[in-house]
Amino acid sequence: MGERVDLSRFAQLVRERDGFLIMTHCRPDGDTVGSAAALCLILRAMGKSAYMMANPEITDRYAAYAEGLFAPEGFEAGTITAVDLAAETMFPQGFAGGEVELCVDHHGSNTIYAKYALVMPEKAACGEIVLELARELGVRIDKDIADRLYVAVSTDTGCFMYRNTTAGTHRAAAELIDAGADFGGLNVKLFRKVSAARLRLEGLIYGSMKSYYDGRITVATVTLDMMRSSGAQERDCDDLASLAGRVQGSVCSATIRENENGGCRISLRSGFDVNSSDVCARFGGGGHPMAAGCAMDCPPDIARERLVAAIIEEWKK
Amino acid sequence: MGERVDLSRFAQLVRERDGFLIMTHCRPDGDTVGSAAALCLILRAMGKSAYMMANPEITDRYAAYAEGLFAPEGFEAGTITAVDLAAETMFPQGFAGGEVELCVDHHGSNTIYAKYALVMPEKAACGEIVLELARELGVRIDKDIADRLYVAVSTDTGCFMYRNTTAGTHRAAAELIDAGADFGGLNVKLFRKVSAARLRLEGLIYGSMKSYYDGRITVATVTLDMMRSSGAQERDCDDLASLAGRVQGSVCSATIRENENGGCRISLRSGFDVNSSDVCARFGGGGHPMAAGCAMDCPPDIARERLVAAIIEEWKK
Repeated sequence: MGERVDLSRFAQLVRERDGFLIMTHCRPDGDTVGSAAALCLILRAMGKSAYMMANPEITDRYAAYAEGLFAPEGFEAGTITAVDLAAETMFPQGFAGGEVELCVDHHGSNTIYAKYALVMPEKAACGEIVLELARELGVRIDKDIADRLYVAVSTDTGCFMYRNTTAGTHRAAAELIDAGADFGGLNVKLFRKVSAARLRLEGLIYGSMKSYYDGRITVATVTLDMMRSSGAQERDCDDLASLAGRVQGSVCSATIRENENGGCRISLRSGFDVNSSDVCARFGGGGHPMAAGCAMDCPPDIARERLVAAIIEEWKK
Repeated sequence: MGERVDLSRFAQLVRERDGFLIMTHCRPDGDTVGSAAALCLILRAMGKSAYMMANPEITDRYAAYAEGLFAPEGFEAGTITAVDLAAETMFPQGFAGGEVELCVDHHGSNTIYAKYALVMPEKAACGEIVLELARELGVRIDKDIADRLYVAVSTDTGCFMYRNTTAGTHRAAAELIDAGADFGGLNVKLFRKVSAARLRLEGLIYGSMKSYYDGRITVATVTLDMMRSSGAQERDCDDLASLAGRVQGSVCSATIRENENGGCRISLRSGFDVNSSDVCARFGGGGHPMAAGCAMDCPPDIARERLVAAIIEEWKK
């Protein structure tokens, strides 16, 4: 168990150290990659030796922002620094071990596994903390840093659309744009463009949607046939469970995904009227009141009937 | 021809006047409705008499933000004030006439048809100007005003995704969130939820997409059959022409929409590699280098062949 420190103490700890090896979390997203890459460039601007730790799970979507920053073979880390990484269970694949000296994170659930942790749960994105840290360290944000912090801030808030966005997030975006971030080009890449296979799959999913209970329940189905005919791979399937919730009037949405073994996995999202976790618990699953999941050993059509009946029963409680 | 005035002079003109009748533009969008409604509430907060002018084209999407603000029968306007309205050709349907005294707008093309015009083309949304005006007038932004200005600012920038967004837009959003704007709820309504018919139509459009020229050209088709089978109405067809551009690798995208008379309308969008206007000019159409349109007297399949051949010819020039 380490020590939670504030921004000015953390900045002092950074100034006193060198040989930074910066760690991103497993299943890396834009916030961990963008924040870690920006921190690496900020440390280099201070004259420090700094590299990113390899993370084999970084996908094409974010690889460009870490390119050229990875530690060379044989680099001896002086200061292992974790970014946007809440717990040791989130360490990247292939983590070679070593004490984590510093951690910058915005998850309130951070387990303080690092020796010194700067945790600011009020921030929508870890990128906002790295931006404040740069200011505290007196490092000027150049375009390369601004681009990476914009990736961090925009992806963690769904381009400022999600409810975790704050006034501070917008102020950070303003500062990054002033510093030269290519927000227009980045937005196109991050939020607008998707693979042709993903679009074909979305098309089939929209075609599969069925409404129940006066339109308050929407159910989408993703069958193996749809995966095959669209040509979609697993990498094209990010956040499919959010599509059913786009229907106006729908307050509870389910996505049923057929398995190779003939069963299916179900993802359920709801508002306050029905508890997703209670519905999924009926089928041996669980989760949170507004987002939960379960599995069923039956084809999607039968799963849909059972699920809708259960949702309506829970709703009437 | 009126006079262009600056913010402080405009504020002075507002202070001296009363009996405001606030005009939105034809085919009203979120910026004109949100900005006009906010201005109406700001004027009332100053103790002025202020109403919005009826605009029969305000759709369900924006009606809630103007609700209860329209002028009663027989209201005698002292000061007709146009908002986000660039030219007399954009006056709303049913405009009863009368001199336009004041105009607040962000279109550089504003024809200065009003007696006094505050035009700030550097602003992404007219809502940003109304926010500055409120500050200049010393009116506190309450939640009702903040919600309406957030609608204005967010819709005109595609939730801060479009290239017209500026650092100032983000600073305005931050100020509105601080003032209590329900940005989370508004984002869901404005950007996330669409009609079930629209989603079905999007599904069919994604299914219709074809790629040419090593994936650099994408063509989507919207047939009358697709309109019928999805149940989509014209109100479900906002911005359909942007969908084809979502495909990764595509730099030129066309949307072919079948007409009732057997012909079709084509909307073309491109980057710098090919000039949309030149392509469309070959078929008697026109527009801008990056967005143009034309019509063809043939079914969609034949239109697609002709169009793709023309795009490739222009590309190779």
